[in-house]
Amino acid sequence: MTTAVSAPSLEAVKELIDARLNDYCKVRTLSTTQLGERYAMLWESISSLLQIGGKRFRPYMLISAFDAYAPNDEIEAIIPAALAQEMVHVAMLIHDDIIDRDTIRYGIKNVQGRYEDHYAPFIADKTERTHMSQSAAILAGDVLISDSYRLLSKVDRPPEVITKAMTIFSNGIFEVVGGELLDTESAFLPDGIISAEVVARYKTASYSFISPLTMGALLAGASEEQTNYLHQYAEYLGVAYQLRDDLLGVFGDEAKTGKSTSTDIIEGKRTYLIEQFRQCGTEAQQKQFFSIFHNSDASENEIAQARTILLESGAKVRVDEEIDSLRNKAEQLIDLLEISEQSKTVFHKLLETCLTRNA
Amino acid sequence: MTTAVSAPSLEAVKELIDARLNDYCKVRTLSTTQLGERYAMLWESISSLLQIGGKRFRPYMLISAFDAYAPNDEIEAIIPAALAQEMVHVAMLIHDDIIDRDTIRYGIKNVQGRYEDHYAPFIADKTERTHMSQSAAILAGDVLISDSYRLLSKVDRPPEVITKAMTIFSNGIFEVVGGELLDTESAFLPDGIISAEVVARYKTASYSFISPLTMGALLAGASEEQTNYLHQYAEYLGVAYQLRDDLLGVFGDEAKTGKSTSTDIIEGKRTYLIEQFRQCGTEAQQKQFFSIFHNSDASENEIAQARTILLESGAKVRVDEEIDSLRNKAEQLIDLLEISEQSKTVFHKLLETCLTRNA
Repeated sequence: MTTAVSAPSLEAVKELIDARLNDYCKVRTLSTTQLGERYAMLWESISSLLQIGGKRFRPYMLISAFDAYAPNDEIEAIIPAALAQEMVHVAMLIHDDIIDRDTIRYGIKNVQGRYEDHYAPFIADKTERTHMSQSAAILAGDVLISDSYRLLSKVDRPPEVITKAMTIFSNGIFEVVGGELLDTESAFLPDGIISAEVVARYKTASYSFISPLTMGALLAGASEEQTNYLHQYAEYLGVAYQLRDDLLGVFGDEAKTGKSTSTDIIEGKRTYLIEQFRQCGTEAQQKQFFSIFHNSDASENEIAQARTILLESGAKVRVDEEIDSLRNKAEQLIDLLEISEQSKTVFHKLLETCLTRNA
Repeated sequence: MTTAVSAPSLEAVKELIDARLNDYCKVRTLSTTQLGERYAMLWESISSLLQIGGKRFRPYMLISAFDAYAPNDEIEAIIPAALAQEMVHVAMLIHDDIIDRDTIRYGIKNVQGRYEDHYAPFIADKTERTHMSQSAAILAGDVLISDSYRLLSKVDRPPEVITKAMTIFSNGIFEVVGGELLDTESAFLPDGIISAEVVARYKTASYSFISPLTMGALLAGASEEQTNYLHQYAEYLGVAYQLRDDLLGVFGDEAKTGKSTSTDIIEGKRTYLIEQFRQCGTEAQQKQFFSIFHNSDASENEIAQARTILLESGAKVRVDEEIDSLRNKAEQLIDLLEISEQSKTVFHKLLETCLTRNA
């Protein structure tokens, strides 16, 4: 076992990625010169989202996996891959927001939201303005998907490794697109066609966990067997993360999560929690619950009742148990990783952070 | 000068690309197995567009440029790049159709059009159904942009060449996104903000001409100087192509183009032709023309008048002259290309085909 330099913390990664994305956005905005200020405006709206960003969790996972398998290598060579992971994530968020008709992201106006303002002086009709703003947001996501590959192609690794990294990356996008589609369709297709666990696997685990972790290992030169273990770990972690997210959407502390705990019930979101309730709720519980679920007229009082029913039916416990089971499997996989104890701690902590989080 | 095998014809390229895209779609549709038939449906709707396709002009240009500079090399190694060019084009068309609210492409229902049918039994509200169908089409375009890079990464060339090819490819997408944005905005921004020639350069010349031609030369190992000449040739050709397209949109033979010659006038499309008319039309001509232009109540008779005014004002002649001027510059660049006479003929014919076309 090598005596590794201490692995970069989430805070250190965030600082690094923030700075690099800032640089990237400046260069890209400057590149719009020949197309003029109208295109620069699109890049400014992209930049505002890319720069405010989230916790930079995907770059952190990629760098952690890389560091675990190549503890003595400088991470500089693989930073473009970390940026690519964050960039494609923001691209998907921009398009996801169009689908969900959201105009706020990270507490600020997203691309569509900013364009609603830009276009207000020129397009009086609200529907038309929304359509044109969504069009700008479609284009913004497109150029970010493209630019994420551009970044990835610049990673300083042997060519056959880059080709494999591109395959991992495109697998992630192929799967998240399928997961997104299923998630969208589950809102209106009849029950039983789409499984919430399949959605969690493909919408969440795939590009947000599997892609960064396995790409980090690949870039570090980890063996195929080791990369496969990490892939499996990422899948358990990612699905459990989504199940936890669903619980927070109903039982969370709004002050901490910043999200309403009523929306999922009012909008009738068919999560794994609801699937479990269908199996374990009594007839009476189901009757009462589904008179409240997916009912935009439901009162706060009724929504509180719905929550109580989910608790009393044992549905929440079932989800907790599934999260624990996934977590145990992920823990066991960490034992199989041929990495330093210090790096193992990073992967244990990742589980801890993702699965006991309240925000 | 090498004695080249005869360069592949447009028909031969079309046959090859059709077959390869067919194979690709089969593999991708099979890959949806784990996500189930709902995702397979998305790939079927993508496949129907990718397979019916157009003339495969972009792959043809890439292969022609490659063949010109590497006449003795097998084209097999670079086919993935040709497929990538066609794939990203279809991706942009799918997103462009959302922006333009079109549901027909290549004479068949596009992704959004097919999803309007798929969702009809489940979503009664027309606006909601349109939104959900557009959402599916956004996702379809996303996965195709991603897959085009996946293909490009598999080209059998040295790694530094692949990286350069990716840079060319992403430059094309960066520019077409800007061109698309400007084209969309020119419909509602005040006159004079957006130049039609800039739109033609970035929306049309960039990814449809410059990207395939320079990538073909790069993959063949052409020098930077030679690639730059071809870049310039592609720019002149691409802009001229767009100007010709604008003329056909007003003066074309509907039976041949398959497009209405009234739409551009009724919708008030601000083409280079209209820009010229603003400069050369008399006050009286302008007054009469702009009472018809961008007026959805205009009669067939009035539209015919508008056409006559564009002719009589000299605006059409100005566009024809600009096309001739661009063509002459492009012809001169062909003289600078260090390729066989046979290959030069291909580039001359390309100008002929694009700039005297009636359909």
